[in-house]
Amino acid sequence: MIEIALQSHRRREMIDVTPEINAALAAAEAESAACHIFVPHTTAAAVINENADPDVVRDLLTAWEKLIPPVHFAHTEGNSDAHFLSTLLGPSLLVPVEAGRLRLGTWQGIFFVELDGPRSRRLWITPLPAQRES
Amino acid sequence: MIEIALQSHRRREMIDVTPEINAALAAAEAESAACHIFVPHTTAAAVINENADPDVVRDLLTAWEKLIPPVHFAHTEGNSDAHFLSTLLGPSLLVPVEAGRLRLGTWQGIFFVELDGPRSRRLWITPLPAQRES
Amino acid sequence: MIEIALQSHRRREMIDVTPEINAALAAAEAESAACHIFVPHTTAAAVINENADPDVVRDLLTAWEKLIPPVHFAHTEGNSDAHFLSTLLGPSLLVPVEAGRLRLGTWQGIFFVELDGPRSRRLWITPLPAQRES
Repeated sequence: MIEIALQSHRRREMIDVTPEINAALAAAEAESAACHIFVPHTTAAAVINENADPDVVRDLLTAWEKLIPPVHFAHTEGNSDAHFLSTLLGPSLLVPVEAGRLRLGTWQGIFFVELDGPRSRRLWITPLPAQRES
Repeated sequence: MIEIALQSHRRREMIDVTPEINAALAAAEAESAACHIFVPHTTAAAVINENADPDVVRDLLTAWEKLIPPVHFAHTEGNSDAHFLSTLLGPSLLVPVEAGRLRLGTWQGIFFVELDGPRSRRLWITPLPAQRES
Repeated sequence: MIEIALQSHRRREMIDVTPEINAALAAAEAESAACHIFVPHTTAAAVINENADPDVVRDLLTAWEKLIPPVHFAHTEGNSDAHFLSTLLGPSLLVPVEAGRLRLGTWQGIFFVELDGPRSRRLWITPLPAQRES
Protein backbone atom coordinates (compact mmCIF):
# COMPACT_ATOMS: atom_id res chain seq x y z
CA MET A 1 0.00 0.00 0.00
CA ILE A 2 1.28 3.41 -0.99
CA GLU A 3 0.10 6.54 0.78
CA ILE A 4 -0.31 9.83 -1.07
CA ALA A 5 -0.56 13.01 1.02
CA LEU A 6 -2.86 15.82 -0.15
CA GLN A 7 -3.78 19.32 0.95
CA SER A 8 -7.20 20.72 0.07
CA HIS A 9 -7.78 24.47 -0.05
CA ARG A 10 -11.55 24.92 -0.06
CA ARG A 11 -14.59 23.45 1.72
CA ARG A 12 -15.58 21.51 -1.45
CA GLU A 13 -13.07 20.82 -4.16
CA MET A 14 -12.06 18.27 -6.79
CA ILE A 15 -8.32 17.57 -6.98
CA ASP A 16 -7.03 15.66 -10.03
CA VAL A 17 -4.76 12.94 -8.61
CA THR A 18 -4.19 10.93 -11.81
CA PRO A 19 -0.47 11.92 -12.11
CA GLU A 20 0.23 11.12 -8.44
CA ILE A 21 -1.38 7.67 -8.76
CA ASN A 22 0.57 6.90 -11.94
CA ALA A 23 3.77 7.93 -10.16
CA ALA A 24 2.92 5.63 -7.23
CA LEU A 25 2.31 2.74 -9.64
CA ALA A 26 5.62 3.37 -11.43
CA ALA A 27 7.44 3.33 -8.07
CA ALA A 28 5.77 0.03 -7.10
CA GLU A 29 7.34 -1.67 -10.13
CA ALA A 30 4.82 -4.51 -10.01
CA GLU A 31 2.91 -6.14 -12.84
CA SER A 32 -0.58 -5.17 -11.83
CA ALA A 33 -3.95 -5.74 -13.43
CA ALA A 34 -5.79 -3.12 -11.43
CA CYS A 35 -5.18 -0.28 -9.03
CA HIS A 36 -7.26 0.19 -5.91
CA ILE A 37 -7.73 3.79 -4.75
CA PHE A 38 -9.07 4.26 -1.24
CA VAL A 39 -10.00 7.41 0.70
CA PRO A 40 -9.56 6.79 4.46
CA HIS A 41 -11.83 9.71 5.40
CA THR A 42 -15.59 9.99 6.06
CA THR A 43 -16.08 13.50 4.65
CA ALA A 44 -14.27 13.04 1.33
CA ALA A 45 -14.59 10.74 -1.70
CA ALA A 46 -12.96 9.67 -4.96
CA VAL A 47 -14.59 9.91 -8.38
CA ILE A 48 -13.66 9.41 -12.00
CA ASN A 49 -14.85 11.97 -14.53
CA GLU A 50 -13.79 14.39 -17.23
CA ASN A 51 -10.57 16.28 -16.54
CA ALA A 52 -10.48 18.21 -19.83
CA ASP A 53 -12.98 21.10 -19.50
CA PRO A 54 -12.80 22.73 -16.00
CA ASP A 55 -16.49 23.67 -16.41
CA VAL A 56 -17.39 20.02 -15.85
CA VAL A 57 -15.74 20.15 -12.41
CA ARG A 58 -17.62 23.38 -11.64
CA ASP A 59 -20.94 21.85 -12.74
CA LEU A 60 -20.36 18.71 -10.67
CA LEU A 61 -19.69 20.73 -7.50
CA THR A 62 -22.85 22.77 -8.18
CA ALA A 63 -25.05 19.73 -8.79
CA TRP A 64 -23.73 17.76 -5.79
CA GLU A 65 -24.51 20.72 -3.52
CA LYS A 66 -28.12 20.70 -4.74
CA LEU A 67 -28.49 17.14 -3.44
CA ILE A 68 -28.06 18.28 0.16
CA PRO A 69 -31.56 18.43 1.68
CA PRO A 70 -32.61 21.50 3.70
CA VAL A 71 -33.14 19.52 6.91
CA HIS A 72 -31.88 19.89 10.45
CA PHE A 73 -28.98 17.49 10.96
CA ALA A 74 -28.33 16.07 14.44
CA HIS A 75 -24.54 15.61 14.25
CA THR A 76 -23.11 18.60 16.13
CA GLU A 77 -19.95 18.95 14.06
CA GLY A 78 -22.10 20.57 11.36
CA ASN A 79 -20.66 18.53 8.51
CA SER A 80 -23.38 15.93 7.96
CA ASP A 81 -23.72 17.25 4.41
CA ALA A 82 -20.15 16.07 3.80
CA HIS A 83 -20.81 12.61 5.29
CA PHE A 84 -23.91 12.37 3.09
CA LEU A 85 -22.17 13.31 -0.17
CA SER A 86 -19.28 11.00 0.77
CA THR A 87 -21.67 8.01 0.86
CA LEU A 88 -23.13 8.92 -2.55
CA LEU A 89 -19.78 9.43 -4.30
CA GLY A 90 -17.95 6.67 -2.43
CA PRO A 91 -14.45 6.25 -0.98
CA SER A 92 -13.19 3.45 -3.22
CA LEU A 93 -12.31 3.05 -6.91
CA LEU A 94 -10.80 0.23 -8.92
CA VAL A 95 -9.12 1.08 -12.23
CA PRO A 96 -7.50 -1.20 -14.84
CA VAL A 97 -3.70 -1.04 -15.13
CA GLU A 98 -1.69 -1.79 -18.25
CA ALA A 99 2.10 -1.71 -18.54
CA GLY A 100 2.38 -0.10 -15.11
CA ARG A 101 -0.01 2.78 -15.80
CA LEU A 102 -3.67 3.46 -15.16
CA ARG A 103 -5.73 2.54 -18.18
CA LEU A 104 -8.47 5.16 -18.30
CA GLY A 105 -10.88 6.28 -21.01
CA THR A 106 -9.84 9.22 -23.21
CA TRP A 107 -11.60 11.86 -21.12
CA GLN A 108 -11.27 10.30 -17.68
CA GLY A 109 -9.24 11.53 -14.74
CA ILE A 110 -9.30 10.45 -11.09
CA PHE A 111 -10.31 13.09 -8.58
CA PHE A 112 -9.98 13.29 -4.83
CA VAL A 113 -13.19 15.00 -3.70
CA GLU A 114 -12.87 17.22 -0.65
CA LEU A 115 -16.26 17.75 1.00
CA ASP A 116 -15.29 19.35 4.33
CA GLY A 117 -11.99 21.16 3.80
CA PRO A 118 -9.58 22.72 3.79
CA ARG A 119 -7.61 19.89 5.38
CA SER A 120 -4.62 17.59 5.09
CA ARG A 121 -5.80 14.35 3.51
CA ARG A 122 -4.48 10.95 2.45
CA LEU A 123 -5.13 8.51 -0.36
CA TRP A 124 -4.22 4.82 -0.20
CA ILE A 125 -3.10 3.07 -3.40
CA THR A 126 -2.92 -0.72 -3.68
CA PRO A 127 -1.80 -2.41 -6.93
CA LEU A 128 -3.60 -5.74 -7.43
CA PRO A 129 -1.91 -8.62 -9.27
CA ALA A 130 -2.80 -9.88 -12.72
CA GLN A 131 -4.30 -13.27 -13.36
CA ARG A 132 -1.48 -15.76 -14.10
CA GLU A 133 -1.82 -18.07 -17.08
CA SER A 134 -3.54 -21.29 -16.01
CA MET B 1 -8.41 -7.05 -20.10
CA ILE B 2 -11.30 -7.89 -22.39
CA GLU B 3 -13.21 -5.18 -24.25
CA ILE B 4 -16.93 -5.46 -24.90
CA ALA B 5 -18.44 -3.17 -27.56
CA LEU B 6 -21.93 -1.77 -27.04
CA GLN B 7 -24.40 0.37 -28.94
CA SER B 8 -26.94 2.44 -27.03
CA HIS B 9 -30.16 3.56 -28.68
CA ARG B 10 -31.60 6.28 -26.44
CA ARG B 11 -30.33 9.30 -24.46
CA ARG B 12 -30.73 7.40 -21.16
CA GLU B 13 -30.92 3.64 -21.09
CA MET B 14 -30.01 0.58 -19.04
CA ILE B 15 -28.50 -2.30 -21.02
CA ASP B 16 -28.24 -5.70 -19.31
CA VAL B 17 -24.68 -6.89 -19.99
CA THR B 18 -24.61 -9.91 -17.66
CA PRO B 19 -24.52 -12.47 -20.51
CA GLU B 20 -21.73 -10.60 -22.34
CA ILE B 21 -19.59 -10.46 -19.18
CA ASN B 22 -20.13 -14.16 -18.47
CA ALA B 23 -19.10 -14.94 -22.04
CA ALA B 24 -15.94 -12.84 -21.63
CA LEU B 25 -15.09 -14.68 -18.40
CA ALA B 26 -15.61 -18.06 -20.08
CA ALA B 27 -13.29 -17.05 -22.93
CA ALA B 28 -10.60 -15.93 -20.44
CA GLU B 29 -10.45 -19.47 -19.02
CA ALA B 30 -8.81 -18.25 -15.82
CA GLU B 31 -9.56 -19.20 -12.23
CA SER B 32 -10.76 -15.86 -10.98
CA ALA B 33 -12.10 -14.75 -7.63
CA ALA B 34 -13.64 -11.55 -8.87
CA CYS B 35 -14.46 -9.70 -12.07
CA HIS B 36 -13.77 -6.01 -12.50
CA ILE B 37 -16.14 -4.14 -14.78
CA PHE B 38 -15.02 -0.68 -15.88
CA VAL B 39 -16.76 1.97 -18.00
CA PRO B 40 -14.15 4.13 -19.82
CA HIS B 41 -16.63 6.97 -20.41
CA THR B 42 -17.54 10.08 -18.41
CA THR B 43 -21.24 10.21 -19.36
CA ALA B 44 -22.13 6.58 -18.63
CA ALA B 45 -21.99 4.23 -15.64
CA ALA B 46 -22.42 0.62 -14.50
CA VAL B 47 -24.90 -0.54 -11.88
CA ILE B 48 -26.16 -3.78 -10.41
CA ASN B 49 -29.88 -4.15 -9.80
CA GLU B 50 -32.97 -6.22 -10.55
CA ASN B 51 -33.18 -7.58 -14.09
CA ALA B 52 -36.46 -9.48 -13.62
CA ASP B 53 -39.28 -6.90 -13.74
CA PRO B 54 -38.69 -4.27 -16.48
CA ASP B 55 -40.69 -1.79 -14.38
CA VAL B 56 -37.71 -1.55 -12.00
CA VAL B 57 -35.53 -0.33 -14.87
CA ARG B 58 -38.21 2.20 -15.83
CA ASP B 59 -38.51 3.43 -12.22
CA LEU B 60 -34.74 3.78 -11.86
CA LEU B 61 -34.49 5.90 -15.00
CA THR B 62 -37.36 8.08 -13.73
CA ALA B 63 -35.87 8.53 -10.26
CA TRP B 64 -32.33 9.26 -11.51
CA GLU B 65 -33.70 11.98 -13.79
CA LYS B 66 -35.35 13.65 -10.78
CA LEU B 67 -31.92 14.04 -9.15
CA ILE B 68 -30.79 16.47 -11.85
CA PRO B 69 -31.09 19.98 -10.39
CA PRO B 70 -32.77 22.77 -12.43
CA VAL B 71 -29.62 24.90 -12.54
CA HIS B 72 -27.66 26.53 -15.32
CA PHE B 73 -24.67 24.34 -16.17
CA ALA B 74 -21.51 25.99 -17.52
CA HIS B 75 -20.18 23.11 -19.69
CA THR B 76 -21.15 24.07 -23.24
CA GLU B 77 -21.66 20.52 -24.50
CA GLY B 78 -25.00 20.51 -22.65
CA ASN B 79 -24.47 17.10 -21.05
CA SER B 80 -23.44 18.06 -17.52
CA ASP B 81 -26.49 16.16 -16.27
CA ALA B 82 -24.87 13.01 -17.68
CA HIS B 83 -21.49 13.74 -16.03
CA PHE B 84 -23.34 14.33 -12.76
CA LEU B 85 -25.35 11.09 -12.82
CA SER B 86 -22.20 9.23 -13.89
CA THR B 87 -20.42 10.30 -10.67
CA LEU B 88 -23.38 9.17 -8.54
CA LEU B 89 -23.77 5.77 -10.18
CA GLY B 90 -20.08 5.17 -10.77
CA PRO B 91 -17.97 3.66 -13.56
CA SER B 92 -16.57 0.64 -11.72
CA LEU B 93 -17.99 -2.59 -10.27
CA LEU B 94 -16.39 -5.62 -8.68
CA VAL B 95 -18.36 -8.88 -8.65
CA PRO B 96 -17.46 -12.28 -7.15
CA VAL B 97 -16.69 -15.09 -9.60
CA GLU B 98 -17.19 -18.79 -8.97
CA ALA B 99 -16.34 -21.61 -11.37
CA GLY B 100 -15.72 -19.10 -14.15
CA ARG B 101 -19.05 -17.32 -13.87
CA LEU B 102 -20.28 -14.16 -12.13
CA ARG B 103 -21.74 -15.00 -8.76
CA LEU B 104 -24.67 -12.63 -8.37
CA GLY B 105 -27.66 -12.59 -6.05
CA THR B 106 -30.89 -14.18 -7.30
CA TRP B 107 -32.39 -10.95 -8.66
CA GLN B 108 -29.22 -9.16 -9.69
CA GLY B 109 -28.06 -8.29 -13.18
CA ILE B 110 -25.28 -5.98 -14.35
CA PHE B 111 -26.33 -2.98 -16.41
CA PHE B 112 -24.40 -0.57 -18.59
CA VAL B 113 -26.07 2.79 -17.97
CA GLU B 114 -26.13 5.15 -20.94
CA LEU B 115 -26.63 8.74 -19.82
CA ASP B 116 -25.86 10.68 -23.01
CA GLY B 117 -26.68 8.44 -25.94
CA PRO B 118 -27.24 7.08 -28.40
CA ARG B 119 -23.57 6.19 -28.90
CA SER B 120 -21.05 3.44 -29.45
CA ARG B 121 -19.65 2.47 -26.07
CA ARG B 122 -17.12 0.10 -24.53
CA LEU B 123 -16.85 -1.92 -21.33
CA TRP B 124 -13.56 -3.24 -19.95
CA ILE B 125 -13.57 -6.57 -18.12
CA THR B 126 -10.62 -7.70 -15.96
CA PRO B 127 -10.69 -11.07 -14.14
CA LEU B 128 -8.80 -10.88 -10.82
CA PRO B 129 -7.02 -13.94 -9.41
CA ALA B 130 -8.10 -15.96 -6.40
CA GLN B 131 -6.15 -16.09 -3.17
CA ARG B 132 -3.78 -19.07 -3.27
CA GLU B 133 -3.65 -21.40 -0.29
CA SER B 134 -1.02 -20.19 2.17
CA MET C 1 -15.86 -16.51 -0.64
CA ILE C 2 -17.23 -16.26 2.88
CA GLU C 3 -20.91 -15.64 3.54
CA ILE C 4 -22.08 -13.57 6.50
CA ALA C 5 -25.74 -13.85 7.51
CA LEU C 6 -27.55 -10.77 8.79
CA GLN C 7 -30.97 -9.89 10.15
CA SER C 8 -32.32 -6.38 9.74
CA HIS C 9 -34.99 -5.03 12.06
CA ARG C 10 -36.37 -1.91 10.36
CA ARG C 11 -37.37 -0.80 6.86
CA ARG C 12 -34.21 1.35 6.55
CA GLU C 13 -31.24 0.70 8.77
CA MET C 14 -27.43 0.83 8.86
CA ILE C 15 -25.77 -2.19 10.47
CA ASP C 16 -22.07 -1.93 11.36
CA VAL C 17 -20.50 -5.11 10.01
CA THR C 18 -16.81 -4.19 10.50
CA PRO C 19 -16.26 -6.78 13.29
CA GLU C 20 -17.94 -9.57 11.30
CA ILE C 21 -15.78 -8.86 8.24
CA ASN C 22 -12.59 -8.79 10.31
CA ALA C 23 -13.59 -12.13 11.85
CA ALA C 24 -14.17 -13.60 8.38
CA LEU C 25 -10.73 -12.37 7.24
CA ALA C 26 -9.07 -13.88 10.33
CA ALA C 27 -10.76 -17.23 9.62
CA ALA C 28 -9.58 -17.15 5.99
CA GLU C 29 -5.93 -17.05 7.16
CA ALA C 30 -4.76 -15.73 3.81
CA GLU C 31 -2.29 -12.95 3.07
CA SER C 32 -4.62 -10.52 1.37
CA ALA C 33 -4.08 -7.05 -0.01
CA ALA C 34 -7.74 -6.13 -0.19
CA CYS C 35 -11.15 -7.38 0.90
CA HIS C 36 -14.13 -7.36 -1.43
CA ILE C 37 -17.51 -6.88 0.22
CA PHE C 38 -20.55 -7.67 -1.92
CA VAL C 39 -24.28 -7.35 -1.21
CA PRO C 40 -26.23 -9.95 -3.25
CA HIS C 41 -29.51 -8.03 -2.93
CA THR C 42 -31.19 -5.36 -5.06
CA THR C 43 -32.83 -3.41 -2.21
CA ALA C 44 -29.80 -3.08 0.07
CA ALA C 45 -26.29 -1.63 -0.17
CA ALA C 46 -22.94 -1.32 1.58
CA VAL C 47 -21.29 1.96 2.57
CA ILE C 48 -18.26 3.15 4.51
CA ASN C 49 -18.72 6.08 6.87
CA GLU C 50 -18.31 7.26 10.46
CA ASN C 51 -19.18 4.69 13.11
CA ALA C 52 -18.32 6.89 16.11
CA ASP C 53 -21.25 9.32 16.59
CA PRO C 54 -24.64 7.58 16.07
CA ASP C 55 -26.06 10.95 14.97
CA VAL C 56 -24.14 10.57 11.70
CA VAL C 57 -26.05 7.36 10.97
CA ARG C 58 -29.32 9.11 11.81
CA ASP C 59 -28.47 12.06 9.52
CA LEU C 60 -27.49 9.75 6.65
CA LEU C 61 -30.81 7.87 6.84
CA THR C 62 -32.66 11.21 6.89
CA ALA C 63 -30.75 12.66 3.94
CA TRP C 64 -31.01 9.48 1.80
CA GLU C 65 -34.79 9.47 2.30
CA LYS C 66 -34.97 13.04 0.97
CA LEU C 67 -33.46 11.83 -2.33
CA ILE C 68 -36.52 9.73 -3.10
CA PRO C 69 -38.61 11.68 -5.61
CA PRO C 70 -42.40 12.05 -5.06
CA VAL C 71 -43.27 10.25 -8.29
CA HIS C 72 -45.50 7.34 -9.15
CA PHE C 73 -43.40 4.21 -9.46
CA ALA C 74 -44.52 1.43 -11.81
CA HIS C 75 -43.03 -1.60 -10.01
CA THR C 76 -45.94 -3.15 -8.14
CA GLU C 77 -43.92 -4.43 -5.18
CA GLY C 78 -43.88 -0.86 -3.88
CA ASN C 79 -40.15 -0.84 -3.11
CA SER C 80 -38.75 1.08 -6.07
CA ASP C 81 -37.40 3.64 -3.59
CA ALA C 82 -35.19 0.88 -2.20
CA HIS C 83 -33.96 -0.18 -5.66
CA PHE C 84 -33.21 3.48 -6.40
CA LEU C 85 -31.20 4.14 -3.20
CA SER C 86 -29.41 0.80 -3.72
CA THR C 87 -28.06 2.01 -7.08
CA LEU C 88 -26.85 5.30 -5.55
CA LEU C 89 -25.10 3.71 -2.56
CA GLY C 90 -23.91 0.60 -4.39
CA PRO C 91 -23.62 -3.10 -3.56
CA SER C 92 -19.82 -3.45 -3.67
CA LEU C 93 -16.86 -2.17 -1.65
CA LEU C 94 -13.14 -2.83 -1.80
CA VAL C 95 -11.07 -2.14 1.33
CA PRO C 96 -7.30 -2.45 1.90
CA VAL C 97 -6.15 -5.29 4.18
CA GLU C 98 -3.01 -5.30 6.29
CA ALA C 99 -1.81 -8.15 8.50
CA GLY C 100 -5.10 -9.97 8.05
CA ARG C 101 -7.31 -7.06 9.11
CA LEU C 102 -9.25 -4.34 7.29
CA ARG C 103 -7.18 -1.19 7.06
CA LEU C 104 -9.70 1.63 7.47
CA GLY C 105 -9.35 5.32 8.29
CA THR C 106 -9.65 6.36 11.95
CA TRP C 107 -13.35 7.16 11.81
CA GLN C 108 -14.46 4.62 9.20
CA GLY C 109 -16.69 1.60 9.68
CA ILE C 110 -18.38 -0.63 7.10
CA PHE C 111 -22.16 -0.67 7.13
CA PHE C 112 -24.69 -2.99 5.57
CA VAL C 113 -27.53 -0.70 4.49
CA GLU C 114 -31.02 -2.18 4.67
CA LEU C 115 -33.43 -0.30 2.42
CA ASP C 116 -36.45 -2.61 2.39
CA GLY C 117 -36.44 -4.53 5.66
CA PRO C 118 -36.85 -6.13 8.00
CA ARG C 119 -35.38 -9.20 6.33
CA SER C 120 -32.75 -11.93 6.47
CA ARG C 121 -29.79 -10.79 4.41
CA ARG C 122 -26.36 -11.98 3.31
CA LEU C 123 -22.98 -10.40 2.69
CA TRP C 124 -20.27 -12.01 0.55
CA ILE C 125 -16.63 -11.49 1.54
CA THR C 126 -13.74 -12.28 -0.85
CA PRO C 127 -10.11 -11.72 0.19
CA LEU C 128 -7.96 -10.71 -2.81
CA PRO C 129 -4.26 -11.62 -2.96
CA ALA C 130 -1.35 -9.23 -2.58
CA GLN C 131 1.01 -8.42 -5.40
CA ARG C 132 4.01 -10.76 -5.27
CA GLU C 133 7.49 -9.31 -5.56
CA SER C 134 8.55 -9.25 -9.19
